[in-house]
Amino acid sequence: MNKLVIPLAVLLIGCSQNQKSYVPKEITSAIPTKHIVIDSLNHPWSIAFLSNEEALVSEKDGNLLHIDLNSKERRVIKGFPTDLTDSIRAIHFGDNSGIFEVLIDPDFKGNKWVYVSYAAKKAGVGSTTKVIRAKLQNDSLYQHETLLVAEPFTREYFHYGGGMTFGADGTLYITIGERLFWERDEPEIPIAQDVSDKRGKIYRINLDGSIPENNPDFGPNAVPGLYAMGIRAAQGIIVEPKTGNIWFSEHGTIQGDELNVLKAGANYGWPNVTSGKLRSQDYTPPKLEDVTFTSPVWFWHHTVAPTGLAFYTGDEFPGWKNNLIVPGLSRGSLWRFRVEDEVIKSVEELFIDDRVRIRKVRQSPDGKLYILTDEDNGKLIQIKAQ
Amino acid sequence: MNKLVIPLAVLLIGCSQNQKSYVPKEITSAIPTKHIVIDSLNHPWSIAFLSNEEALVSEKDGNLLHIDLNSKERRVIKGFPTDLTDSIRAIHFGDNSGIFEVLIDPDFKGNKWVYVSYAAKKAGVGSTTKVIRAKLQNDSLYQHETLLVAEPFTREYFHYGGGMTFGADGTLYITIGERLFWERDEPEIPIAQDVSDKRGKIYRINLDGSIPENNPDFGPNAVPGLYAMGIRAAQGIIVEPKTGNIWFSEHGTIQGDELNVLKAGANYGWPNVTSGKLRSQDYTPPKLEDVTFTSPVWFWHHTVAPTGLAFYTGDEFPGWKNNLIVPGLSRGSLWRFRVEDEVIKSVEELFIDDRVRIRKVRQSPDGKLYILTDEDNGKLIQIKAQ
Repeated sequence: MNKLVIPLAVLLIGCSQNQKSYVPKEITSAIPTKHIVIDSLNHPWSIAFLSNEEALVSEKDGNLLHIDLNSKERRVIKGFPTDLTDSIRAIHFGDNSGIFEVLIDPDFKGNKWVYVSYAAKKAGVGSTTKVIRAKLQNDSLYQHETLLVAEPFTREYFHYGGGMTFGADGTLYITIGERLFWERDEPEIPIAQDVSDKRGKIYRINLDGSIPENNPDFGPNAVPGLYAMGIRAAQGIIVEPKTGNIWFSEHGTIQGDELNVLKAGANYGWPNVTSGKLRSQDYTPPKLEDVTFTSPVWFWHHTVAPTGLAFYTGDEFPGWKNNLIVPGLSRGSLWRFRVEDEVIKSVEELFIDDRVRIRKVRQSPDGKLYILTDEDNGKLIQIKAQ
Repeated sequence: MNKLVIPLAVLLIGCSQNQKSYVPKEITSAIPTKHIVIDSLNHPWSIAFLSNEEALVSEKDGNLLHIDLNSKERRVIKGFPTDLTDSIRAIHFGDNSGIFEVLIDPDFKGNKWVYVSYAAKKAGVGSTTKVIRAKLQNDSLYQHETLLVAEPFTREYFHYGGGMTFGADGTLYITIGERLFWERDEPEIPIAQDVSDKRGKIYRINLDGSIPENNPDFGPNAVPGLYAMGIRAAQGIIVEPKTGNIWFSEHGTIQGDELNVLKAGANYGWPNVTSGKLRSQDYTPPKLEDVTFTSPVWFWHHTVAPTGLAFYTGDEFPGWKNNLIVPGLSRGSLWRFRVEDEVIKSVEELFIDDRVRIRKVRQSPDGKLYILTDEDNGKLIQIKAQ
């Protein structure tokens, strides 16, 4: 369906007549189709490719797995920190536990570092987002180093954030959610607007956990590593290869799902400004003095619950080159944005007749496109050109 | 920007080495850009191509024009019926007057028929949608024949409908709006639900105005030519070349903008069911017995005000082959739908950073894509691949 024929004349330019038979008869337009690679995952959250055939997959309700995509063999990574939260089966869709992002050091072959964000527990107090790195050898983690603990530990199960990406500058960017469900529970200075509160922020740290000297200055009370604030619940964060810009997705409440370009020192406004509505109709955010809010680059008019995004740089979908691919939990969304610098030129919603909750989009080193589905029987699905 | 290189290897299959230099270095992905062909149109509504270079353009606030797209010369078509409404400058965006659709007979070279829908007036009573055909010779209309008058004439200025397309079966399909702005003004049986009222319907007639014998049967009270009902305000109607299916766009009130596939005898539900909200919060449609409503194939979560649509069959945008292109007045929308049979597979919103109210999308005989903008300084714009 919808195949197109690039006129043979185009292909035949420069070809002698007697070689016509070697020319492919048609180049089909790239129509995306889903092909299940791995199933039986427990609400997978992220995937990091060790090679084109091997990957680490993190589960929200389970483990960190080492999976061979060809043989389908999967092994549980041992040596995970003992403060990993017990798996909860979500009562509310937004409830979370377990392991979130997993990244592999750019120099993994040399240093064996992997970076993991997860929901950590503290007995009798609650849980929060924690980021560690550890050396991965023989499917076990060694030499754990704690890079960030987004205190306080609380009893809330949602909006951990936990998105991570390596910046083009060699630093590590981390999203931390504000951990509230109802805005009426905000303290006098809303969590995401309080530079002394670790929640509702984006961080920039060196790979060893130290703080880059050229981070923006939020004043003497700011928590270490603070890079941007005013965040409600951001899971997806990714570098745009062409520009080095960092894009992140954010969940709103009633609508208010957004895409942003990350700027040093920026305040993205939550809960004082949002493209959606506050869930607590009886709550009015306090007036804040001398604050400039940064607007989203895009917002939706309906709920998408955008999650872990990726820039496509493969060859299989020529028309998608350098496009931003945004998955969502709500409505089984998968969106493709054509962006130029920080401007959105066009946006396509894909798989409208074949929806499934999607937690993450990732590309393998050789440019294949994968999605992870957020299901009890979670799947790694390759998006192939038909 | 966003150019893609189809690997030379693909192009070079079957080519001898010494002919490499004749192969184009890259095939760019088709990024749409706007190029103004004609301006200074008075809120143009439709365009019909006499050839690749000559077209008839109808104006909502003006005339039927014969335009040479190369020389830019434009001549007013004379002999237009005298009951054409006086031009009104819209007080409300939805207000209409003047000339709507213009179609050229499939056998125009032989018979010279053109088909026009317009807002016709009756002194002291009001206006309504009228469809005529006439022979076009030397830029004048002759031998006018009235094909449809959507009585009653009323004083309302909106929702004339007036969309027309030739079906694959050689008949003429016509949309007529229900002419109400507030639902509280509905009679006991809502206009669009009353088979004896000409408004809020879609018609199928022969090209001479006679009624096809195989039209659906709506009972003894039905108005002649009735093909489908339950229509609020439909402007765009077009045949899908690949299937012969007829698609039409419909304006909702508060949201409720929809795309439908036309079915003989179908009831599209207005005002009893809608994907949007009724404007009159105090109005409840009456319960109707033994009625089956046909759901839209697509609806938007925000206002688009979709207008005159087209299926793309040109070669310039290979990835758009057989896609449905839908323009809108609201937000300057231009949308591209990939459809298979009656299922929407994906949808792309285009020109997000370059919006303009669009009344119509049309393709020239040689497959070039054009839009008409709804402006005081209305424009015919060609959408070219960058």
